This record gives sequence, structure tokens and C-alpha cells, in this order.
Amino acid sequence: MPLEIERKFLLGAFEPPATAVRQHIEQGYIAIKEDGTEVRLRRIGGSRVLGIKRRASAAEGSPVRIEVERELGEEEFAELWPATEGARLIKDRYTFEASGVTVHADVYQGELTGLRTAEVEFGSEAEAEAFSAPDWFGAEITGVKAYKNQTLATRGLPES
Amino acid sequence: MPLEIERKFLLGAFEPPATAVRQHIEQGYIAIKEDGTEVRLRRIGGSRVLGIKRRASAAEGSPVRIEVERELGEEEFAELWPATEGARLIKDRYTFEASGVTVHADVYQGELTGLRTAEVEFGSEAEAEAFSAPDWFGAEITGVKAYKNQTLATRGLPES
Repeated sequence: MPLEIERKFLLGAFEPPATAVRQHIEQGYIAIKEDGTEVRLRRIGGSRVLGIKRRASAAEGSPVRIEVERELGEEEFAELWPATEGARLIKDRYTFEASGVTVHADVYQGELTGLRTAEVEFGSEAEAEAFSAPDWFGAEITGVKAYKNQTLATRGLPES
Repeated sequence: MPLEIERKFLLGAFEPPATAVRQHIEQGYIAIKEDGTEVRLRRIGGSRVLGIKRRASAAEGSPVRIEVERELGEEEFAELWPATEGARLIKDRYTFEASGVTVHADVYQGELTGLRTAEVEFGSEAEAEAFSAPDWFGAEITGVKAYKNQTLATRGLPES
């Protein structure tokens, strides 16, 4: 079911647990539309993925997004990658269980070094609303445009 | 191999041969970039296809394009289709052998009624160059921006 319901938070100093799964991610955007629809290429571990995401409803900042993904071959990926020039980012993703949920903690690299975020996915909007962020999460940035990966990839870190 | 080498021509009055395969095509563009890269949804016969095309070389009007396609489920297609609003077209495609090649003759509908084109795909650039268009083909429009489907879908027929 291609629906994504997630909340996202800033993280401060962060020590991933020893049990965390680490994945290196390089991603670039072929297209980013005004309504937020994005066409993304992602290399994650040994996989190459083409993904399209868009908001499920017209509401700005809605936590529900439609996501369609397909694996690409190495040659296909290599041929499409140049179309993402100027819209790329690199991060390490640590995935682990904490506070009763699965946390994706992203540690950004390159020009985005210093930024760390935590994403939590939910099975329903009700679950998303009921989630109480643990102490070690920072400010919530769900739906905040400056912290969307598509914005970070094209404009860099928000000015503080 | 995701390479596409084709030449394209206008067609005048046109009678498809009885052996032609006819396919009804509805397509819309999720994104069209300045460099011509396009992200397309196409419903063709019973299939739904997500496709990305871009020029293989920087040369404007080059006949060689990279093409990556993936089948979509009906629900996925339906959820992404709204992202193509304002960039859609409908045509019937007749495919048949003629003059020693496979011809895709497209008969456009709706606002594009009256336009007919023929596309011929080749296995190499040398074959494409060697092709001699038959009498019943009109002017060549290979690489002509006004006749690209992405332009027709967003701007309609070129002014004559």
C-alpha cells in the first residue's frame, strides 16, 4: 500500500545503539514540483530505487504521502543520475527500535554535515497523532519545508 | 537496453492497413524539465506504465534517448495521475510494417484532433540515418520541440 504516514524531528548529539542497522544513502531529485511532488533516485546499500512521492491530500504539511517505488538496474540508475545534478544529498541512516517505535535516524554528510533528524513511520494518522516523542528528540519538523530532503538537496541547510 | 533511437514525421490523410494493431493511449507528464527530461504516466491498452526519458547526449535534437519504464498497478497509477493535470494527451496508435520498418502512426484526439504523426524506431544511429522516408510520410519533425508529446500535452497544437 503506497501510503506513508510519518513524523520527523531534529536530533542533537546522537549515539546510535550498537544494534542499529546503518545504511549509506545517496539520493538525488530528477524533479521537484511546486505542489511538492518529487521524483527521486536513491542508492541505499546495494539497492537503487526510483521513487515518486506526493501529498495524499491538498493540505500543506499533511503527514500522509503517496509513495511509489521501483528498483532500477545499475545501468539504468547511472543513465538517469545526471538528471539529478544540483539536487543531491548524502546521509547515513541508522534504523533501530526505541520508545516502542522504529526510528530512522539520518546523519547528513557533505554540505549538510551537522544536521541529524529522526523519522518515525506510523500505520495510521491516529497512531501518528498519539505518538509522544521521547526526551532525546528535538523540535518537530514534520511538514516543515526547509527540512524536507528535496529542499536540503537543492538549497542546503536552513539559515538558523 | 534503455536506448531509443527514432525519427518522427507528420502524416496527412491516413488509412491504417487492416493488419495494423490499434492501441488507445492516454498519457500525462508528472514532470518536464528544461533539458527535456520527462517523467510520464501512460495507460496503453491494459497496461499502466511509468516512464522516464532523457536525451543521451547534450545535443539538441539528437535522435538518441534514454528510456526507463516500469509497470504500475491500477491503484498506484490512479494515485499518481492527478500529478499530471494540465499535461495530458490522448491518441490512438496504429502499429504496422511498411517500407521495411515498423511504423507507429499516432492519431491524436481531443484538442489535438487533426494531428497525425509517424514514428520509426531504429537499432542504431547508422540505420536511422540510412532510412529513406516513404512518399506518404510528410515533413520530418525529429527533435522539433513543438511536436514533442510533452509540448503538445502542455501547449496544444503548434500555430501553423
